[in-house]
Amino acid sequence: MNITLAQAETAIAAAREKAIELNTLMNIAILDAGANLVAFVRMDKAWIGSIDIALRKAKTARYFDTNSGEIGRMSQPGGPAYQIEHSNGGMITMPGGIPIRNQQGDIIGAIGASGSTVQNDHLVAQAGADAL
Amino acid sequence: MNITLAQAETAIAAAREKAIELNTLMNIAILDAGANLVAFVRMDKAWIGSIDIALRKAKTARYFDTNSGEIGRMSQPGGPAYQIEHSNGGMITMPGGIPIRNQQGDIIGAIGASGSTVQNDHLVAQAGADAL
Amino acid sequence: MNITLAQAETAIAAAREKAIELNTLMNIAILDAGANLVAFVRMDKAWIGSIDIALRKAKTARYFDTNSGEIGRMSQPGGPAYQIEHSNGGMITMPGGIPIRNQQGDIIGAIGASGSTVQNDHLVAQAGADAL
Amino acid sequence: MNITLAQAETAIAAAREKAIELNTLMNIAILDAGANLVAFVRMDKAWIGSIDIALRKAKTARYFDTNSGEIGRMSQPGGPAYQIEHSNGGMITMPGGIPIRNQQGDIIGAIGASGSTVQNDHLVAQAGADAL
Repeated sequence: MNITLAQAETAIAAAREKAIELNTLMNIAILDAGANLVAFVRMDKAWIGSIDIALRKAKTARYFDTNSGEIGRMSQPGGPAYQIEHSNGGMITMPGGIPIRNQQGDIIGAIGASGSTVQNDHLVAQAGADAL
Repeated sequence: MNITLAQAETAIAAAREKAIELNTLMNIAILDAGANLVAFVRMDKAWIGSIDIALRKAKTARYFDTNSGEIGRMSQPGGPAYQIEHSNGGMITMPGGIPIRNQQGDIIGAIGASGSTVQNDHLVAQAGADAL
Repeated sequence: MNITLAQAETAIAAAREKAIELNTLMNIAILDAGANLVAFVRMDKAWIGSIDIALRKAKTARYFDTNSGEIGRMSQPGGPAYQIEHSNGGMITMPGGIPIRNQQGDIIGAIGASGSTVQNDHLVAQAGADAL
Repeated sequence: MNITLAQAETAIAAAREKAIELNTLMNIAILDAGANLVAFVRMDKAWIGSIDIALRKAKTARYFDTNSGEIGRMSQPGGPAYQIEHSNGGMITMPGGIPIRNQQGDIIGAIGASGSTVQNDHLVAQAGADAL
């Protein structure tokens, strides 16, 4: 099962609404179950460097079917996934990447958000993931 | 002058309408004047390999303020831009990348489309560029 | 708003003056608002390895509209931006990259300096940024 | 013997003068004898995609101590250097890259110009190389 473009747009709309509510400027990326890009938006004046980070957070979340920030906790010095960021062409393990599931619980894609604090990035991504 | 997200969404909507009219499935990318990604959509079941091509066509168009296919005509063997595809991390010089101008004629971004014949790709990109 | 070449040269001249005052040898890079290179100089006998570092510091500063060293503080183990250096094709989060603003406060580009201690690199970049 | 920054600036000044005389907008790069960047300028509104091309033309010229366009003649289909552009991280074999020699004839660096027709690019690079 793959996320559809219509679903991706629903997720992005919900994430943008949350971004506006938090008074932030976000880059938001949606990948499908194959970790390939489906949809992306950068809000006006959002950080340019967050384009790539939003994409990589989503990829990281789907590559391990885990929130990106959870992986970041395991990749600290001494942790079991130390330096995992070097794999897969460069991963981003900060919060803000979340797998997207359908109502049966199957993973159908992932969302990544970047543009503010990692706490806000996570909230925006969560709003998108919850919209489906 | 940079394209806004609202303008990018207008361009994407017009390009999608054209893609549907042509009975094709497209990847559509919009970059700003600095050649940084603003918005992207992949229609359901459009080629995965066209994600990168749509992005690179748009980049190629903005990098030289010229339709990507025009560059492709110059990059043929014996042409003045032979092998230009090796520059800039890999360029795509097939039709389907077009600079986007505002009503004053200033370049504010670029659109790239990929998913069908290059003729169709060009028509879809043109519909997007013309919408502004 | 983009930095002009004339402004970039003013910034480089001020940065070089500071480099000489500090008795250092610097690589100095200026990017525009789209993070694309505008001007670069390497002082005679400055480190070759600092070419890339000066370029990446400037890119890092513009990508997040923040001094590169500030990002480096957040990217330490346990910090909120841990391993952010893996994004965007490789970022450099040491001091020495600074956004450049015009007199209205709009970001029009960024400067990166590398060739000595990071403290000196920062002072040289600051001298360049302050010249506009 | 390596080109100095002062010599690089002399070459760039001469190349810019020629660019203005030809009514073109150029990216101009100077490398040293080790093929490492010494100085670069992008004239206002010159093509963004020509940043990389100017750099690669200069690199190509120094890597083979030959004008880049000469290599491009040998890299045509059936030629002795066919597909040489795939080497060295991507070479650009269009005219506009020229080795720089000192008055004793020793190669001390290279210049690359990009921003117009390859004929104009070559004339601009030649003006820079001749200035030393």
